[in-house]
Amino acid sequence: GAARGPPALAFAREEDKELRQRFMAPPVSGLRELRRRRRELRSRMELLIMETQAEVCRALAALDPGASFAVDTWERKEGTREPRGERRAAAPRARAPLGDPAPVALAGGGGISCVLQDGEVFEKAGVNVSVVSGLLSEEAARQMRSRGKSLKAKDGKLPFCAMGVSSVIHPKNPHVPTMHFNYRYFEIEEADGTKQWWFGGGTDLTPTYLNEEDAIHFHKTLKEACDKHDLKLYPKYKKWCDDYFYIKHRGERRGIGGIFFDDVDSPSKEEVFQFVKSCAKAVVPCYIPIVKKHCHDSFTPEEKLWQQLRRGRYVEFNLIYDRGTKFGLLTPGSRIESILMSLPLTARWEYMHTPPESSKEAEILEVLRNPKDWVH
Amino acid sequence: GAARGPPALAFAREEDKELRQRFMAPPVSGLRELRRRRRELRSRMELLIMETQAEVCRALAALDPGASFAVDTWERKEGTREPRGERRAAAPRARAPLGDPAPVALAGGGGISCVLQDGEVFEKAGVNVSVVSGLLSEEAARQMRSRGKSLKAKDGKLPFCAMGVSSVIHPKNPHVPTMHFNYRYFEIEEADGTKQWWFGGGTDLTPTYLNEEDAIHFHKTLKEACDKHDLKLYPKYKKWCDDYFYIKHRGERRGIGGIFFDDVDSPSKEEVFQFVKSCAKAVVPCYIPIVKKHCHDSFTPEEKLWQQLRRGRYVEFNLIYDRGTKFGLLTPGSRIESILMSLPLTARWEYMHTPPESSKEAEILEVLRNPKDWVH
Repeated sequence: GAARGPPALAFAREEDKELRQRFMAPPVSGLRELRRRRRELRSRMELLIMETQAEVCRALAALDPGASFAVDTWERKEGTREPRGERRAAAPRARAPLGDPAPVALAGGGGISCVLQDGEVFEKAGVNVSVVSGLLSEEAARQMRSRGKSLKAKDGKLPFCAMGVSSVIHPKNPHVPTMHFNYRYFEIEEADGTKQWWFGGGTDLTPTYLNEEDAIHFHKTLKEACDKHDLKLYPKYKKWCDDYFYIKHRGERRGIGGIFFDDVDSPSKEEVFQFVKSCAKAVVPCYIPIVKKHCHDSFTPEEKLWQQLRRGRYVEFNLIYDRGTKFGLLTPGSRIESILMSLPLTARWEYMHTPPESSKEAEILEVLRNPKDWVH
Repeated sequence: GAARGPPALAFAREEDKELRQRFMAPPVSGLRELRRRRRELRSRMELLIMETQAEVCRALAALDPGASFAVDTWERKEGTREPRGERRAAAPRARAPLGDPAPVALAGGGGISCVLQDGEVFEKAGVNVSVVSGLLSEEAARQMRSRGKSLKAKDGKLPFCAMGVSSVIHPKNPHVPTMHFNYRYFEIEEADGTKQWWFGGGTDLTPTYLNEEDAIHFHKTLKEACDKHDLKLYPKYKKWCDDYFYIKHRGERRGIGGIFFDDVDSPSKEEVFQFVKSCAKAVVPCYIPIVKKHCHDSFTPEEKLWQQLRRGRYVEFNLIYDRGTKFGLLTPGSRIESILMSLPLTARWEYMHTPPESSKEAEILEVLRNPKDWVH
């Protein structure tokens, strides 16, 4: 699982060998700048998302020794759109995608996309970091906050900063579930100099077949991460997750949930950051044991086919309902490849496919239609 | 290519043997009713869409002798939602989808879906008819017209009638292009009793590889159908097609176009109907010869893979941009299986896939980015 691409070149300007080993590529803001403003939350969050990216990529690569992560770093200058296929170019330039977060107007910034494709264990695994800053219109700023809170701009423009880590892991074996997570942070400066800030994020699981033990392990690990901060968080964010990942036209959730939250700005910046950090640190322990447990399970062609049909539903959710994907695609200059990294390598749609009653396929559908509580 | 399902039962109430042979299932409005009001345009249009469905299904089935069309007939009562898997039920009830057309509010009506799946020649071929009537809100009526013309309702509700035939054909062989067509008719009655009416429709081709001879044949056949009515129609509707089937985030068209029009209500109801009839009659001659010519072409695994990636783009267009799909999915009680019939059986998304310069793959991409005029 070694990194591909031009990281050597990209790292050449950087001095800190220790950080070089910790990350998949140099941070967008640069190590010197991050060190200079190390007490600011946006710097600590950028380090957290970089660390999370590296932790997850390394844990996945360790399970799929023949495969490797392609690492793409890119920047975007305001109003430009990158040419395709920039990985092999010396200094690739593009616009930072936000993965799940809301759209940004003209903005600078950059990102790092790590993608492992067509491995032995993983069909497609993408872990993406982006750090964007620039100016937002009042309307764009309002849309970014899910509660639609209005913000007062000087000369109609609001300086903002947005960053996040976003990932979707599609394994090959139908007995290994797909996992998605995203953690993000926003800052907007109003006309009077006050800063609004908020966090969003979540981790959720999409199995092809239900395995109750796995479902309990996954939810329990997330619950423990939440409970360290406030016992009310897990139940609230578990429900929010079931509500958000809803494929309305099917009457089904995308998966068996996890946690999801958006526009969180209390009790305090530090406390929410610590909570987000706990969630980010829970990604590897909630998911990797499940991959290890099942990645060598035998499966039938029928099970693979059911997985492909479920992949089709995943595509439906992401292209039709997912707020981040939708806004990302509509934002001029988005890095499309990083946004659509979330799509599976392969998917299938059959007309009128209905699994037989009491089958394993009907069992998972039942849970997707009526979400269960996995831990209390 | 025989019809499956319960058509014998469905036809039992009908007397006309001749019509029974002409259609895939009994018309939604019933033969007696259609005969009673045979001079009305909505009756003539319903017969046209039924005939078109049968013509296309038979032409396709003749090319794929081992496969057969499943025929589902369904109705919808206001505000109800059908259970899944109704094909095998005695009297399946569901809501008529419109395929491409705009959304309808609460409405009665029905439809007939014919689907051939996983044949030798066709991966998935769907031909769908729907006939819906009921009451629309002023807002819903306004949305149905692409030009957003407002309509005056009595008590806030407008009686309407909408019908169409809609089809997507995805062949297995990457040298046989995907084809889509849709022809539809709307009537809305205003408070003062005046009836607004309009037609929409189009036929377009999505090849995996460019074959100039096929592109010219396809466009030429459509142009001839248009030219019989007005020499201005083909150039106008060819451009409308290129503009409509645009995957904005990719900067690519879905395919090499054809014709597309919406909200057409001049010069006269009769003349537009005759034009639509010519277009509907052109579906078989513009497409079937291309299928026959290439369905036995040999192909490589690489060509099949490129087809799968193009299928992914097809899914992106249909789920993100297509007006009819979007509105259909958002309309409560829609028959989802008929709306999503347009999706391919299989699709693929690779991160950062870029075909080599001067390859056959790059050649079609170039045409999708910069549409060409195929006939003059």
